Amino acid sequence: MRETLEAVADGELSVAAAEARLSGYATTPSGRFDAAREHRRGIPEGILAEGKTPEEVRDLAEAAVETTGRALVTRADETHRETVESTFTPTAATVSVDDRAGTITVTSEAFEEPSLAAAVCIITGGTSDYPVAGEAGAVVEAVGADCTVIQDIGVANIDRLFDQLAEIRAADVVIAVAGREAALPTVVAGQVDGPVIGVPVSTGYGHGGDGEAALGGLLQSCTALSVVNVDAGFTAGVQAALIARAVDEAAESRK
Amino acid sequence: MRETLEAVADGELSVAAAEARLSGYATTPSGRFDAAREHRRGIPEGILAEGKTPEEVRDLAEAAVETTGRALVTRADETHRETVESTFTPTAATVSVDDRAGTITVTSEAFEEPSLAAAVCIITGGTSDYPVAGEAGAVVEAVGADCTVIQDIGVANIDRLFDQLAEIRAADVVIAVAGREAALPTVVAGQVDGPVIGVPVSTGYGHGGDGEAALGGLLQSCTALSVVNVDAGFTAGVQAALIARAVDEAAESRK
Amino acid sequence: MRETLEAVADGELSVAAAEARLSGYATTPSGRFDAAREHRRGIPEGILAEGKTPEEVRDLAEAAVETTGRALVTRADETHRETVESTFTPTAATVSVDDRAGTITVTSEAFEEPSLAAAVCIITGGTSDYPVAGEAGAVVEAVGADCTVIQDIGVANIDRLFDQLAEIRAADVVIAVAGREAALPTVVAGQVDGPVIGVPVSTGYGHGGDGEAALGGLLQSCTALSVVNVDAGFTAGVQAALIARAVDEAAESRK
Amino acid sequence: MRETLEAVADGELSVAAAEARLSGYATTPSGRFDAAREHRRGIPEGILAEGKTPEEVRDLAEAAVETTGRALVTRADETHRETVESTFTPTAATVSVDDRAGTITVTSEAFEEPSLAAAVCIITGGTSDYPVAGEAGAVVEAVGADCTVIQDIGVANIDRLFDQLAEIRAADVVIAVAGREAALPTVVAGQVDGPVIGVPVSTGYGHGGDGEAALGGLLQSCTALSVVNVDAGFTAGVQAALIARAVDEAAESRK
Amino acid sequence: MRETLEAVADGELSVAAAEARLSGYATTPSGRFDAAREHRRGIPEGILAEGKTPEEVRDLAEAAVETTGRALVTRADETHRETVESTFTPTAATVSVDDRAGTITVTSEAFEEPSLAAAVCIITGGTSDYPVAGEAGAVVEAVGADCTVIQDIGVANIDRLFDQLAEIRAADVVIAVAGREAALPTVVAGQVDGPVIGVPVSTGYGHGGDGEAALGGLLQSCTALSVVNVDAGFTAGVQAALIARAVDEAAESRK
Amino acid sequence: MRETLEAVADGELSVAAAEARLSGYATTPSGRFDAAREHRRGIPEGILAEGKTPEEVRDLAEAAVETTGRALVTRADETHRETVESTFTPTAATVSVDDRAGTITVTSEAFEEPSLAAAVCIITGGTSDYPVAGEAGAVVEAVGADCTVIQDIGVANIDRLFDQLAEIRAADVVIAVAGREAALPTVVAGQVDGPVIGVPVSTGYGHGGDGEAALGGLLQSCTALSVVNVDAGFTAGVQAALIARAVDEAAESRK
Amino acid sequence: MRETLEAVADGELSVAAAEARLSGYATTPSGRFDAAREHRRGIPEGILAEGKTPEEVRDLAEAAVETTGRALVTRADETHRETVESTFTPTAATVSVDDRAGTITVTSEAFEEPSLAAAVCIITGGTSDYPVAGEAGAVVEAVGADCTVIQDIGVANIDRLFDQLAEIRAADVVIAVAGREAALPTVVAGQVDGPVIGVPVSTGYGHGGDGEAALGGLLQSCTALSVVNVDAGFTAGVQAALIARAVDEAAESRK
Amino acid sequence: MRETLEAVADGELSVAAAEARLSGYATTPSGRFDAAREHRRGIPEGILAEGKTPEEVRDLAEAAVETTGRALVTRADETHRETVESTFTPTAATVSVDDRAGTITVTSEAFEEPSLAAAVCIITGGTSDYPVAGEAGAVVEAVGADCTVIQDIGVANIDRLFDQLAEIRAADVVIAVAGREAALPTVVAGQVDGPVIGVPVSTGYGHGGDGEAALGGLLQSCTALSVVNVDAGFTAGVQAALIARAVDEAAESRK
Repeated sequence: MRETLEAVADGELSVAAAEARLSGYATTPSGRFDAAREHRRGIPEGILAEGKTPEEVRDLAEAAVETTGRALVTRADETHRETVESTFTPTAATVSVDDRAGTITVTSEAFEEPSLAAAVCIITGGTSDYPVAGEAGAVVEAVGADCTVIQDIGVANIDRLFDQLAEIRAADVVIAVAGREAALPTVVAGQVDGPVIGVPVSTGYGHGGDGEAALGGLLQSCTALSVVNVDAGFTAGVQAALIARAVDEAAESRK
Repeated sequence: MRETLEAVADGELSVAAAEARLSGYATTPSGRFDAAREHRRGIPEGILAEGKTPEEVRDLAEAAVETTGRALVTRADETHRETVESTFTPTAATVSVDDRAGTITVTSEAFEEPSLAAAVCIITGGTSDYPVAGEAGAVVEAVGADCTVIQDIGVANIDRLFDQLAEIRAADVVIAVAGREAALPTVVAGQVDGPVIGVPVSTGYGHGGDGEAALGGLLQSCTALSVVNVDAGFTAGVQAALIARAVDEAAESRK
Repeated sequence: MRETLEAVADGELSVAAAEARLSGYATTPSGRFDAAREHRRGIPEGILAEGKTPEEVRDLAEAAVETTGRALVTRADETHRETVESTFTPTAATVSVDDRAGTITVTSEAFEEPSLAAAVCIITGGTSDYPVAGEAGAVVEAVGADCTVIQDIGVANIDRLFDQLAEIRAADVVIAVAGREAALPTVVAGQVDGPVIGVPVSTGYGHGGDGEAALGGLLQSCTALSVVNVDAGFTAGVQAALIARAVDEAAESRK
Repeated sequence: MRETLEAVADGELSVAAAEARLSGYATTPSGRFDAAREHRRGIPEGILAEGKTPEEVRDLAEAAVETTGRALVTRADETHRETVESTFTPTAATVSVDDRAGTITVTSEAFEEPSLAAAVCIITGGTSDYPVAGEAGAVVEAVGADCTVIQDIGVANIDRLFDQLAEIRAADVVIAVAGREAALPTVVAGQVDGPVIGVPVSTGYGHGGDGEAALGGLLQSCTALSVVNVDAGFTAGVQAALIARAVDEAAESRK
Repeated sequence: MRETLEAVADGELSVAAAEARLSGYATTPSGRFDAAREHRRGIPEGILAEGKTPEEVRDLAEAAVETTGRALVTRADETHRETVESTFTPTAATVSVDDRAGTITVTSEAFEEPSLAAAVCIITGGTSDYPVAGEAGAVVEAVGADCTVIQDIGVANIDRLFDQLAEIRAADVVIAVAGREAALPTVVAGQVDGPVIGVPVSTGYGHGGDGEAALGGLLQSCTALSVVNVDAGFTAGVQAALIARAVDEAAESRK
Repeated sequence: MRETLEAVADGELSVAAAEARLSGYATTPSGRFDAAREHRRGIPEGILAEGKTPEEVRDLAEAAVETTGRALVTRADETHRETVESTFTPTAATVSVDDRAGTITVTSEAFEEPSLAAAVCIITGGTSDYPVAGEAGAVVEAVGADCTVIQDIGVANIDRLFDQLAEIRAADVVIAVAGREAALPTVVAGQVDGPVIGVPVSTGYGHGGDGEAALGGLLQSCTALSVVNVDAGFTAGVQAALIARAVDEAAESRK
Repeated sequence: MRETLEAVADGELSVAAAEARLSGYATTPSGRFDAAREHRRGIPEGILAEGKTPEEVRDLAEAAVETTGRALVTRADETHRETVESTFTPTAATVSVDDRAGTITVTSEAFEEPSLAAAVCIITGGTSDYPVAGEAGAVVEAVGADCTVIQDIGVANIDRLFDQLAEIRAADVVIAVAGREAALPTVVAGQVDGPVIGVPVSTGYGHGGDGEAALGGLLQSCTALSVVNVDAGFTAGVQAALIARAVDEAAESRK
Repeated sequence: MRETLEAVADGELSVAAAEARLSGYATTPSGRFDAAREHRRGIPEGILAEGKTPEEVRDLAEAAVETTGRALVTRADETHRETVESTFTPTAATVSVDDRAGTITVTSEAFEEPSLAAAVCIITGGTSDYPVAGEAGAVVEAVGADCTVIQDIGVANIDRLFDQLAEIRAADVVIAVAGREAALPTVVAGQVDGPVIGVPVSTGYGHGGDGEAALGGLLQSCTALSVVNVDAGFTAGVQAALIARAVDEAAESRK
């Protein structure tokens, strides 16, 4: 601890970074940022922009970059994005944005990108599933796993799916994103020998169109998937990332 | 009307048959039997045994045989079955029973079996879907359509399904019976060019296991099915029978 | 395959049309268009505009016209409509729009309109059910079946319904569109001898007013209907179209 | 009060009857019996047997007879019935039982049957609706209104209903009892000019089969009914009885 | 019929009025107006503005005035109101509007206001229940019953309620409008001896705040109410009006 | 710790009691008993018998008595009761049972009954609410608070309630137990100035009869209650006990 | 009463204040204000702005200040706030506003702030829970209890929680506000020995994201909480305030 | 293929085994056994006994043993168990049974047990969660992963959990089984750096007690879990097994 305090005294360490190092979190005007998440969980903490003001998102993103070298913002709308971009652009940090997925990634110059020897494949039933798939992809890429996205292979035309099966099978873990009746994850899980994580999407209308039919179908799947909540691309990405890390560690520790 | 009344007076026509001919229904101690259903709808009225006493089922079955030449009883348990069998066995009527499906068919000697130039294929995802499929089959056979049942071709092993696809495609209408996530009807409807009727089944457990997940999935199906209620094999059979009749009539009227 | 490739090389066949001919679908920047749907299912693939940008709808409509000669867009709002109209108007294609139903049909000059020897009757309970009925009608007309729409015959004044019964009975298949308690499809199905497809509509308020009361009522109907999801005019139209095709084929094959 | 206490002292009034007269309720080992219900509400308090032991039902029935001259027990099973019958049979009270409806009525010799100049008609869709209709009828008869029950006129065969319409129209208030989609109350309410009370029944299976589809349909009815809970024959009977009393009072007070 | 046609020929009767007289309904560009509703049901047909364009509402209101002498529009917003006012204002009809309740009543000069010898009391739990109460009141007044509205007597301060009890008891029928837990109708029904109709209101938030908690509470009420759907002031008004008519008729017919 | 171990070595302390003292819980063949609950939470841990075998309940009860001097078992059926009674009867412990409430209390001879200077009043709407009220009462008595139970004061006859109001107001905290529409807690909370805890009960039938209507009504109550789950008498008792302790502590610490 | 009337006559007492003193409530153009709430319940009546016009809120706030010396407005938006501020600002009353929580407190100069010898601690899982926590805090402060708010201590990083445990334990009652899965109140309640009131928050998305998952989790909590409705900060504040008063009274009465 | 047929002809291969080898499944009187599941998915197919007759379970188990060397039966009751035991006991197969978990494992003598270099830890909140945990464990053991079960560490006493944390962290994947509010998986997932699969259990009562509260809480978890259906121990076991295999393969392929 003395070392940390001396670094603060010497101006070599910011107060936030020091607090994070000592207590595990950094206090900001907009909440406590869980700076130890990556250490404890192996994945970076995401900043959910939805329901926060642009200023709150900015405060948390700054704390994230300061204490962990980067920030991952999800479900950001245009005002969040503009605020984050104008905050970091003049600095030595890189801001990359995926408009359709609503994600923003900020990386400081000093940040060392991780890399995992594991592959994740994200598949979708239709075009409108992309935002959820893209959110999942942002997390997978943040941990450094190899990430492939194959879109628009819903079961209405099952040939589209079978054409891609070899590529899907090559992954260590599959994230299958689908709305309406969400038959895609079930059919795919019957054809591959790795874990499949199903993500229901709320793109329908009528009874069950808010993603509940898809969720129910995935929970009842006869091909044994695990599931995350409706539209929860972030959660699926985290779970896939954790599996990718387990795979990578196995390879490492037994080299 | 006079003719009918004279036939009653002469003992050539029972009171029930005469009432049915004149008013469209026969009054029994256990309710009014809709004797004109077949005339009006083209399908026989079914007698739902569930929730009725054996005596009530017997009364209605007798009225059915007397006024229309036959009776179709569904969701019958053992006590219903015994009562019906002991009622009709010593008579000139034939009683056939499907224990697993819970159906009883009584046919008087004089009854002329109908025959339709149309084919219905009933498919199921697993063995436990049979009771519902059998109930549907009983109706399809009652109208005289050609009826094929293909069981246990759920999508967990999609090869089982593709092996049977040619036979399924040969039908004029398909009834697809499935529980759990009910992906089978969706996948099949993407592969055939006739109408598919999906029947959700209540064989699961947990969230949506009472058939609600299957129902939601069928209503949201990306391959455009029509649907009947959970476990409603009878309704699916009626709808398929009515389509079979429309097909048959088209062939007839344009011969 | 060689023939197809030579046609592409000679500029006689577009890349999209060639891809569709070879693989069954055409890849666009906005997703894979299922060009083989009509071949496989006997009905054209619809393009659901809701949840897509005008540009995505335009891309898919262009692929549809290029590979199948026409496009059917549903649930289109004003911006979708304007984009589609401005895309196709200067070309040799015809664009027809139904504002109340939200449908757009684009037909290339070369497209040969199909014609089926089968009749579909679409009935509604009230004026506000029209958008759903119109969507169903667009599909029925796309396959070339004879299509009649009878509006505003809900059971509150049952005379309005009985006045139209003869015309309803003349159809091979009936689509009955109704909101609130949706008693209309049940009453009609008790009076006709062809298949009836019930479509619940979300025009109410209070408990069940989002179409759930209507859906529940149709699933429980004592007169044995098949059902599609709330507001799912497209699905009802497809199912009726498939029945119409089965009827037409029966007439053809037995001529 | 003195008078009441003197009557108790003289043994002319039981303790329970005196307590009821003074406080409005009689305390029994099984709860407080609301002896003033009939005075306050114009209808007798019912004793719901379901969920009570036979002894509790007996205690309350004794208090009811002692303080108000009669008892009305609903949802009684065989053990309740036997206990009540054996309690009152040797006394000067009359016990009448409706097994199908689960009601028991006990009337002391001294009780003066009320009579109202008003007519209630109870109709049902099918035979299995009788228990609920019978429960409603027991209350209607208890207040002395004229009570007609017309069974088994569901809309699947609408002729059965129209045959009875004149008799239904003759009533001051109609109770319409129906399960499944419960279209009957809606159709009837469109044809009569008096108040209709809809009672949903839980005789179905599948989605909405527990009476929820019927309840939803009645709440959404396009013909403006009022509704009671699923299987709540007692409540419907009370509401009809109160309307019958209002009608009777109007006739009385303006004679 | 000849008489009617001659009146049309002579220009003494409009085409719409003649159609209504002969068939029971008047056909407008915006649907069939049920002109016989009042004759058949004893209450005027209401025109639900919600979900209709101002032009549709105007068409139906014109047909209503032409064929029945008046129009009752419910759930009208500002655009509906302006269109109706500008349509009828220059004519010999009177337009009266209740902004908070969203009702518009149009009465032709020739229309003879009905009058019933019966009293309806409408009570509410809080100020925000007024729109629903006002809608009910418009129907009650349309049939000519005596109508009293007592607001803001929810049970949180039960003294407010008891202060008004005498006035409530004086009515032949009570409409009790309440949101949140809707205890008011239950408490009142325990204190009066006439029929009480409970109307749940959707003014809450959180679990059950959309009126479902109130609806559930009314259906389960231990004091035997009848119920209408959430926010369904119109339906409650119709039911109360029908009871008022029955009361009035009893007085009349027995004079 | 040494002291504890020496006591075990000397046979003065059982292994279980020693484990509990050191780790806060006692390991049994049927699970870990949370022996520190009372120390940490101020209330004894309850043993929920429902879903456990009689042997499991016995194991846990023995651990409870051994480590804390007593055991409180809830939702016990006859087999649980017999096993517990036969286990403890020959020992120096007292077993008291409430059959209707399903509770069993075992107290070792050495146990010193606590006593709190605070009063809890438990009220119920009807007789069938007693099991839930009794369960709550067992917890309240276990902490030594003064506990009064007033039954059968539902709002259908509001005089029954007002007769008891003075006694209810005298308590520091009120537990109001009610089924059906659960208006009682709302009405009472409007009349008293202490905290009221509402407990919904599942004694109804039809829509909301499983306690959901009561729960919804309590959560929406216009008189600001706090709520526990359906039938959760134990939880209500704990919450009241904790309030009673806070009240008692305030009195103590400020003496 | 005479005294009150004389004060009115002399102009010393406003009409509203006199009415409130005599009848317990003050009648305003926007409803009856429950002026006796504080006397009867020990807490001030809140004015729920949501669903009311600014004018209605102003009327009620004026009545509140006039009759009780202050007003507490909740769920106020900007228009409510502006109207209230402009109404009271030029007067001798103090207006304090919490924008994030949506609360407005108006205090007349003459009002004597209460003070209770009891402490309430309000904790939240994340920043977005503040509005609900702030609403609860406004009520707690209004009764004069000591109020501490500790934010952003959700269980994802449980160290954040344990760092604050000592402060939480020091309170007499804890309000735990949490969205998503709401594990925080359960974990905290296992660690403190006072009553904990859980408040579910509607800040999630997907299945259960409207606060239903949090509500369900709190009702099922294995650590025996009491619960208020989703987002019902006001109700939680009232319940905590009532407990604080009970604690304070205990200290007082036993001094 | 010739080889297979010759082996059948020579009696070296059973018909079932040959069919399985050629088509991927074995046809039995009780359905098609998916013999290629293990090859295709890397996990054995389970035989769900629930809803099947003992004879059907026996048929499928025989096919499983014959074609894959073993059978894994889940949700077996006593009759299933007796039938399976009596079928295999006299043979060279080993039958092991877990009564509490309802699982039966049959292993032929020739079967070579697999072994994976990966560890799975299964934790439960309470004793009554064991059946679900045991079912998951049976699958994990069937694939040969290292399997640890730690029971009864629910968060009510969080020390019990922290005492076991080191052992939990040592696993490659964690299955967390919990009922009621299911806070355990959320708290654990915040403390470990591998994937956690949450399994909701249906051991509660009241609102959400059927596992829905637990499911909702897991889907909303702030610590990013994946989830399986209520009580779906089998599915959780399969998902963990697939992750274990991925981990093992990584170690293998990179050796």
